[in-house]
Amino acid sequence: MAHTPTAAYSISMKVTLDNVPGVLGRLTLAIGEAGGNICGIGGFEVKTATLTDTVVVQCRDEAHQIEIIDVVESVDGVTLHSWYDRTFHMHEGGKIEVLALMPVGDADDLSMAYTPGVARVCMAIHDEPAVAHTHTIKKNTVAIVSDGTAVLGLGDIGPEAAMPVMEGKALLFKEFGGVDAFPVCLDVETTEQLIEAVVAIAPTFGGINLEDIAAPGAFEVEAELEKRLSIPVFHDDQHGTAVVTLAALRNAAKLVGKDFSELTVVLAGMGAAGVAIGHILLDAGIGDIIGVDSRGALHESRDDLNSAKQHFVEHANRQGRSGSVHDVMPGADVFIGVSAPGLITVEDVQAMASDPIVFAMANPDPEIRPELVRDIVAVMATGRSDFPNQINNVLAFPGIFRGALDAQATTVTENMKIAAADAIAESIPAERLSPTDIIPSVFERDVSLRVAAAVARAAVADGVCRM
Amino acid sequence: MAHTPTAAYSISMKVTLDNVPGVLGRLTLAIGEAGGNICGIGGFEVKTATLTDTVVVQCRDEAHQIEIIDVVESVDGVTLHSWYDRTFHMHEGGKIEVLALMPVGDADDLSMAYTPGVARVCMAIHDEPAVAHTHTIKKNTVAIVSDGTAVLGLGDIGPEAAMPVMEGKALLFKEFGGVDAFPVCLDVETTEQLIEAVVAIAPTFGGINLEDIAAPGAFEVEAELEKRLSIPVFHDDQHGTAVVTLAALRNAAKLVGKDFSELTVVLAGMGAAGVAIGHILLDAGIGDIIGVDSRGALHESRDDLNSAKQHFVEHANRQGRSGSVHDVMPGADVFIGVSAPGLITVEDVQAMASDPIVFAMANPDPEIRPELVRDIVAVMATGRSDFPNQINNVLAFPGIFRGALDAQATTVTENMKIAAADAIAESIPAERLSPTDIIPSVFERDVSLRVAAAVARAAVADGVCRM
Repeated sequence: MAHTPTAAYSISMKVTLDNVPGVLGRLTLAIGEAGGNICGIGGFEVKTATLTDTVVVQCRDEAHQIEIIDVVESVDGVTLHSWYDRTFHMHEGGKIEVLALMPVGDADDLSMAYTPGVARVCMAIHDEPAVAHTHTIKKNTVAIVSDGTAVLGLGDIGPEAAMPVMEGKALLFKEFGGVDAFPVCLDVETTEQLIEAVVAIAPTFGGINLEDIAAPGAFEVEAELEKRLSIPVFHDDQHGTAVVTLAALRNAAKLVGKDFSELTVVLAGMGAAGVAIGHILLDAGIGDIIGVDSRGALHESRDDLNSAKQHFVEHANRQGRSGSVHDVMPGADVFIGVSAPGLITVEDVQAMASDPIVFAMANPDPEIRPELVRDIVAVMATGRSDFPNQINNVLAFPGIFRGALDAQATTVTENMKIAAADAIAESIPAERLSPTDIIPSVFERDVSLRVAAAVARAAVADGVCRM
Repeated sequence: MAHTPTAAYSISMKVTLDNVPGVLGRLTLAIGEAGGNICGIGGFEVKTATLTDTVVVQCRDEAHQIEIIDVVESVDGVTLHSWYDRTFHMHEGGKIEVLALMPVGDADDLSMAYTPGVARVCMAIHDEPAVAHTHTIKKNTVAIVSDGTAVLGLGDIGPEAAMPVMEGKALLFKEFGGVDAFPVCLDVETTEQLIEAVVAIAPTFGGINLEDIAAPGAFEVEAELEKRLSIPVFHDDQHGTAVVTLAALRNAAKLVGKDFSELTVVLAGMGAAGVAIGHILLDAGIGDIIGVDSRGALHESRDDLNSAKQHFVEHANRQGRSGSVHDVMPGADVFIGVSAPGLITVEDVQAMASDPIVFAMANPDPEIRPELVRDIVAVMATGRSDFPNQINNVLAFPGIFRGALDAQATTVTENMKIAAADAIAESIPAERLSPTDIIPSVFERDVSLRVAAAVARAAVADGVCRM
């Protein structure tokens, strides 16, 4: 499969070139011929007979990295000194730090920030618990909680291995929502232990963002925490994905000129994300949904369905379609995948209704690679940052928590989620809509602000604010 | 009791003065006569007939703050506009934030820090767990864990009310040890729940600093976590305090010319800190210790002692002293208190052996206030930052964790603790030793560095390093 070179597999090489014409040309030509994508040359340092240079190249995978290294070493007049994998380099030592919001430069600072002055603030909270929300980090801090059981598309890789994702999430919370977020990866065996651990740590935080927790346990975890805690609990894999998917599908429908209420959706992957997407689409008035799990379409003949899946037999799949995903694709207006790499084929997409809308969101590798159906689909979206139309939760969760914290909300209601989706969809004015532009880029900073404002308004309207 | 004005109760006032000679003089005189300690006047802004000014005044307590406010309002030619309590102001919104160690400014950054690139780092950890210690925040991040059952001298105020202390601690970890530390205040009911919660969150962290957990539960928590986790676990109230107390007592003994091995110590308060101080002093070869709890001296006639206390009946109190703290003070060389405000009297100190050494470390109010025994003691120390000789854990914990993390230690051994105490004591050269200078100030930055180096060396010597 012809992967596109990506920064995720980029390398940085330090090379010395003979200082004669043609060497740089030969080097860049060789890299290009080997399929490497040169995205930076810099750090020139001329030393009479030679010059030293840093070359950054995007590769397809780790084998391709080695291939590029070999090619560079073979170019006449070029010496490779060292190279490193830019992704691993970026993660070295972790991606976040904990910083002081005030100086502790002298004894006076210390006697206010710490003993004896701090005792006064402690007692103020003891006397009036709401003070914790104004005079501790609870005001602006969210826990990013995972047990590592369903990390990206990687499965149950455990809490330690989940940390790089949760740290990355913390970066995004801060960058796009101004929310201080801290990863808490939990070593637990059961759903009950997971719930108890989160209840235990809750006094520290102003909100709980659940992440990469396998279904069906995740449903119970969220429901139980929602009941037991008086701070917002939000399972991002479910609701973050659902919010952004709804936003994107509203705009995609608009673009192909189909009525949202007449769309038939094949929804593949009925884990945490799939179930939440199904719910928000039904709430938003979608035409029909054919849910598909690893054993095929959710249909009344199935006797192996949990209650979350059963919901979509009772409230959707009105034509009673059954069989494999390939059996139900013909005639569908929309395919939404939150399942597994390579689930569907080019033929499946060809069999869809006119102007197929394909959201292939399996991470990191989509249900079908965009290159393969470029000429067939009307609109294509993925979960990846290196293709157009990224259905990226980053558009939702920073703004949702920003809004919830600002409004001092005690929960995240359905209205708050739908308000977030609307705010995202409306960020693309009609005249801008195009097949490669149905949702804003995560780098459009005003989106999070608009989401936050919409969410805070909805929280106030729903009467779920602490003050 | 005549408290000294302190920054912990300081206020900042914005005042307008008539722009004529004498007004500022009358204002400062009035504040001084009311017992306020002016520690800053600034922000002058002259407006023809008036000038605006900010005056910072240290007060004794909250009643005194109000008294000062009233006095200022009564000064002729002065108008008070607004004022705030500087301690509460400093704690507003919490004292730490979570910051990114790298930019997420474009799609390439995102595809390395987050999906799809992050999956590569996750799988590297999944394949080789040690990678978590180099490529996640585990490398440099410590959890500051408390259940809020024994916060400062305030008792069982609960996890929310404990947060300001733990945040303050995080400031100190960063400032003095370069360690990223994050507060985790736990809502738990039992020792078992506390242990399970810490085991659950451990994958995120490179070390666990236990804090303000009531004895005797704290002993079990530390021992059990030490057994179950392969990262350093350190109960700072026990061992941090013990390390700094040992360092200070070594230098105090030197100063009064008594042999460490011939000192008799009355140790009041046999909770977490007292027990640990007793242990490290015995290990370091102290003469004798008479332990005292709320029911009096630990003596073989007592049948109400837990095993931690019983240790000091069997291994100390060689003369079999019994009775109240007042009964055992006569003849003692040293009083060390980690108990309760006002526990001992001036008469108790007068009854001690020549050149009494008094470490009155109850927080925030000591066993006896230094003003009362200023002329009797040879050396006096407290736990407070606003008196000389602060027995402050800040001298120990940042360097101990810095050293443990640098050495990739899996535990904190006895030798590492004693190495830390030695490094602190040796920071005061003989020629500098004086009754008000037996331990370095927390602002002597080189102390933590020396502690870290000594601890790392001891870890290597003990063979407890991961690599």
